[in-house]
Amino acid sequence: MFAGPIQDLIDELSRLPGIGPKSAQRVAIHLLKSPPVEAHRLARTIAEAKDKVILCRVCFNFSDAEVCNYCSDPRRDRSLICVVQEAPDIVAIERTREYRGLYHVLQGAVHPLEGVRVEDLRISELIDRIDGSPALDGSGAGAVTEVIIATNPNVEGEATAMELVRLVAPLPVRVTRLASGLPIGGDLEFADEVTLGRALEGRRHLGG
Amino acid sequence: MFAGPIQDLIDELSRLPGIGPKSAQRVAIHLLKSPPVEAHRLARTIAEAKDKVILCRVCFNFSDAEVCNYCSDPRRDRSLICVVQEAPDIVAIERTREYRGLYHVLQGAVHPLEGVRVEDLRISELIDRIDGSPALDGSGAGAVTEVIIATNPNVEGEATAMELVRLVAPLPVRVTRLASGLPIGGDLEFADEVTLGRALEGRRHLGG
Repeated sequence: MFAGPIQDLIDELSRLPGIGPKSAQRVAIHLLKSPPVEAHRLARTIAEAKDKVILCRVCFNFSDAEVCNYCSDPRRDRSLICVVQEAPDIVAIERTREYRGLYHVLQGAVHPLEGVRVEDLRISELIDRIDGSPALDGSGAGAVTEVIIATNPNVEGEATAMELVRLVAPLPVRVTRLASGLPIGGDLEFADEVTLGRALEGRRHLGG
Repeated sequence: MFAGPIQDLIDELSRLPGIGPKSAQRVAIHLLKSPPVEAHRLARTIAEAKDKVILCRVCFNFSDAEVCNYCSDPRRDRSLICVVQEAPDIVAIERTREYRGLYHVLQGAVHPLEGVRVEDLRISELIDRIDGSPALDGSGAGAVTEVIIATNPNVEGEATAMELVRLVAPLPVRVTRLASGLPIGGDLEFADEVTLGRALEGRRHLGG
């Protein structure tokens, strides 16, 4: 319906996750109506981010330097490694302000239907980090005392967690997993049965 | 939380309509994980669309030529002009396959709170088209016999329609407005009272 370059723009925008044909059209029209400098700035920012952003060679978080902000920060606790599926999970954990250790981004989760196998994840690199060889992050061998598995509480994340436990357990570190249970502020009445089951299973002793 | 170029990308994406911080982050991560060629193609498509797409000098639809596809198509009925607020409205009307006339894009609707006045819309250019002078579209003076007002059925669209009627009525053309009423496939029970009121007001004689 639209002429060449407009339809091309709508098509390209539709490929992005969570953007359907209607939103793509809305964004395209917005860009076409906005001052040229705005649209060109967006185009340049995309190209620049793609050119500059690499994976941290220690933890595989996105970074604009060879070693990311977390891995190079001397104030972080180097005895803890929190293992997440994707880089945005780090942002979620940082937001809690409860964690001051390091991270390790697996770059996915085991997903047989989508062809993601254990070997495709950055697990051997995690084991190398725990072993301390090669000590890329300068943390020294044996510095890691606890590995916190923070994969998603769903089928893929749980399968990945089990694989991680199997592979990391032989090493001299504590392996822990984020607690599952009722979300704070939620209603017990509306909790799904799996979450409620987990909350019961993981119940904590308060006294007596 | 993210390093410079990633946060820049998320910020730029968040400025787009209908894209909140969460979707912006999702799109940014998608772009960073996708092959470089894809992200660069998106950046190029945005820049190209912005450089190539102009407004048709006849109807003010988006176009990559001086005169758009509709205005330059000899098979379109040059006696009809359908007046819409924005270019995407043309796509919606074309989808009906019921209209073969020309269009005129006002580039907005009267909106006093947002400072959009009648003078800001492309109404004088519409009057010039009806008058046939200057006959930019080659349709010849007096060729237009009907102006169909297809502004949105809301406060701004109705106000714009009333202004259009006032300005176009002195000219020797029929001025019509899209019908308002119950949407096809809808339930009378769930229709809002304004729509139902309009449906009653615009009721059609079927016989007897």
